Amino acid sequence: MDAQVLDQTLLQVRRLLEHDDVPRAIEIIESLLPPDQADLFVELDPETQEALLPQLEVEDAADILEELSDEDAAELASRLDMDELAEIVAEMEPDKAADLLGDLSPDLLRATLSVLDEEEAEDVRPLLLHPDETAGGLMTSEYLVFPEGMTAARALEAVKTWAPKGEQTPYIFVVGEGGRLVGVVNLFGLLRAAPTERLGALVGAEALAAHVRDGQEEVARLMARYDLTAVPVVDDAGRLVGVIDVDALVEVLEEEATEDVQRFGGSQPLNRPYLEATIPSAASKRIGWLLLLFVTGTLTGAVMRLFQSTLDHVIVLALFIPLLIGTGGNAGSQTTATVIRALAVGDIELGDSLRVLWLEFRTALVLGLLLAAGGFVTALLYGSSPLVAAVVAGAMLGIVIWADTVGSLLPLLAARLGLDPALVSGPMMSTVVDATGLLIYFTIAEALLVP
Amino acid sequence: MDAQVLDQTLLQVRRLLEHDDVPRAIEIIESLLPPDQADLFVELDPETQEALLPQLEVEDAADILEELSDEDAAELASRLDMDELAEIVAEMEPDKAADLLGDLSPDLLRATLSVLDEEEAEDVRPLLLHPDETAGGLMTSEYLVFPEGMTAARALEAVKTWAPKGEQTPYIFVVGEGGRLVGVVNLFGLLRAAPTERLGALVGAEALAAHVRDGQEEVARLMARYDLTAVPVVDDAGRLVGVIDVDALVEVLEEEATEDVQRFGGSQPLNRPYLEATIPSAASKRIGWLLLLFVTGTLTGAVMRLFQSTLDHVIVLALFIPLLIGTGGNAGSQTTATVIRALAVGDIELGDSLRVLWLEFRTALVLGLLLAAGGFVTALLYGSSPLVAAVVAGAMLGIVIWADTVGSLLPLLAARLGLDPALVSGPMMSTVVDATGLLIYFTIAEALLVP
Repeated sequence: MDAQVLDQTLLQVRRLLEHDDVPRAIEIIESLLPPDQADLFVELDPETQEALLPQLEVEDAADILEELSDEDAAELASRLDMDELAEIVAEMEPDKAADLLGDLSPDLLRATLSVLDEEEAEDVRPLLLHPDETAGGLMTSEYLVFPEGMTAARALEAVKTWAPKGEQTPYIFVVGEGGRLVGVVNLFGLLRAAPTERLGALVGAEALAAHVRDGQEEVARLMARYDLTAVPVVDDAGRLVGVIDVDALVEVLEEEATEDVQRFGGSQPLNRPYLEATIPSAASKRIGWLLLLFVTGTLTGAVMRLFQSTLDHVIVLALFIPLLIGTGGNAGSQTTATVIRALAVGDIELGDSLRVLWLEFRTALVLGLLLAAGGFVTALLYGSSPLVAAVVAGAMLGIVIWADTVGSLLPLLAARLGLDPALVSGPMMSTVVDATGLLIYFTIAEALLVP
Repeated sequence: MDAQVLDQTLLQVRRLLEHDDVPRAIEIIESLLPPDQADLFVELDPETQEALLPQLEVEDAADILEELSDEDAAELASRLDMDELAEIVAEMEPDKAADLLGDLSPDLLRATLSVLDEEEAEDVRPLLLHPDETAGGLMTSEYLVFPEGMTAARALEAVKTWAPKGEQTPYIFVVGEGGRLVGVVNLFGLLRAAPTERLGALVGAEALAAHVRDGQEEVARLMARYDLTAVPVVDDAGRLVGVIDVDALVEVLEEEATEDVQRFGGSQPLNRPYLEATIPSAASKRIGWLLLLFVTGTLTGAVMRLFQSTLDHVIVLALFIPLLIGTGGNAGSQTTATVIRALAVGDIELGDSLRVLWLEFRTALVLGLLLAAGGFVTALLYGSSPLVAAVVAGAMLGIVIWADTVGSLLPLLAARLGLDPALVSGPMMSTVVDATGLLIYFTIAEALLVP
């Protein structure tokens, strides 16, 4: 459903609610698909949300809580009546329910768990133990798991009675003694198998699995690389403890890409939909880096004061400062973006560092020579002497090579230190190149121009 | 398989090949999973690749051609014997086969199609008609499609005989008269259905579908939003012409994120794995923007020449130029990154432009006031007069607000023009803010400092 249709539907629902025609409004909401329901719901004012949610079919209410952003869902949930909340949570997919409950206050969490059905609570409780951004935090407890000794015919009978709350992943996870993961059987394979065949004989040769403490990026890389639409999660003893499905993969990929772009732009990740950010939260995600870069940026003043006499002597040098350090920042930012992304998708590893540096150095040499020619011509056009133009050209070449080197080194260094390479943002690159670029510029100027 | 294990395996294979122990080398390669096979294969020299590929099991050879980057696969394919190539292509998933054939020279494409089995050629030929980055270019012709009048029992029998070359998507696509898409039946639903039930009665209420000419980003957004693991593709008449599976979605998401980061860093997308880029190709992806930004950057010199007398008069003003325009660029880059990503994941639409601008303006006001205070103190610490410090502070506030405004406007404008918002890169932001920021700075300086 596109944004315009959704806006019109929202208007219609608002009008119906104003005229107290709640049943019609509910009918419209229930006719939408879950992501559209959530998008519409989040636009209503809090009192209306609170009043409306318990009146929806409980499956729809569960879908809406699953689709809302974490913060919105937790906020809405904490305003609901305890029994109503428990009823809705019982209908949610266990992984989504655990995410929601994990965002509630400890008191509310305990209270909700105590009101939940014992069976439902058992599904959710183990999922609460794992940090959000790990395999354990992504996995669900809703999957088909059968012992290796079960026959295909019996497994097929069991499959027919399976009615999960979420998407049905077409895999059967086969376990041996003590719940140890033996392998995976595809539903198609099960259909084709002889009825008396044991599941243990049907599993593929190699079962790729994630460890419960693996980071979400690592899991995403594994699933994307091997085209897995579901991956089993095991604990230290190799026991199957959960399954991560492809929806979780897609969410992680989008989340990681968003974080990368935001970090690379020089902000901390927002971690929530853009329009829901408040001014203090939006500002606080940016001010840290801005101030740090500001302080680093004051180094440029220090460098210029160092060369004050050269600058006083040849005031025309000031003309080219923004162009030189700007171009350096641009070149460095290109390199950093390319290296960050190559690291993120696994095109390069830390072991390739020297190859990366060598490739970047040669690329920078080509780019630097072209830009130095541009700098030389520009300086002449501004009426500078050939000697000043030569200084500008030399500085341009030096700065571009330096910027590309730093631009490839810093993300590799961050990766080596176990940090997210995207922490090396374009702004960080520019700021580092600003001060050091001035140093290069004035050193060349002093050598060539000052008698 | 991690990079170190892969490196060791590569060494082992190389050593075996040096000793002409081809059978052992082949055995090792065939024991690997397809993405690992491809990663290893690409490290061998071209002659070895050419000699080895036809000796592998044809399924493994097909997997390797599917997993290699488009360029590498086309290069290797064009060096193979025609009959060998046709035999391998016949084993590839139809969408991957079409991608490969589409990258060959027209002569080679025609020749290969003529050697292919008629049935195989029929699977691939319609897929060749669509541009790569559209739904038609992503879809496969390998899926289960049954008429709406078929009974569940007969469909189940047919499913059991299905042996596709790629992943088995657990959906049955149901068509009516003339091949019109009626809906989708989940394999689990089919298993539970009464044997005499017709497929037409089993389909869900609403079948989301992509149009064959939809862009790949649009398709990815649809699949991600509605958690679809496969989406049917229809033509203008609503006829089912193909299916896009979740592997394609994952590839598109990664590709789009990579393009976004590279564009935002100020390069054109590389469109190939980082380490496979040559120096001319790496440089050519960057030089366009660098030169354009260089030319725009020369405006900074023009602005400074405009205010030459002010600068000569108060030479200390030059000290703060890098800090002011650097901070402006950083603030703008943060905003741009945030807005670009919010547009990419659908958090904001064009209709939200005013809300975005208002949110950014208020955030910029908070950030600008803080940084202005920092600028004032820094100027005093550098021994400037309070009046000069006030000029620096005022310029800082003005520049940050201006940068954040431009930083949110430009990506929205690009989106309005139907361009990729990520074309508005951090470097572009910095360069625009460099010249205009100087204008703000010197205008304030002239007003306050020049008698």
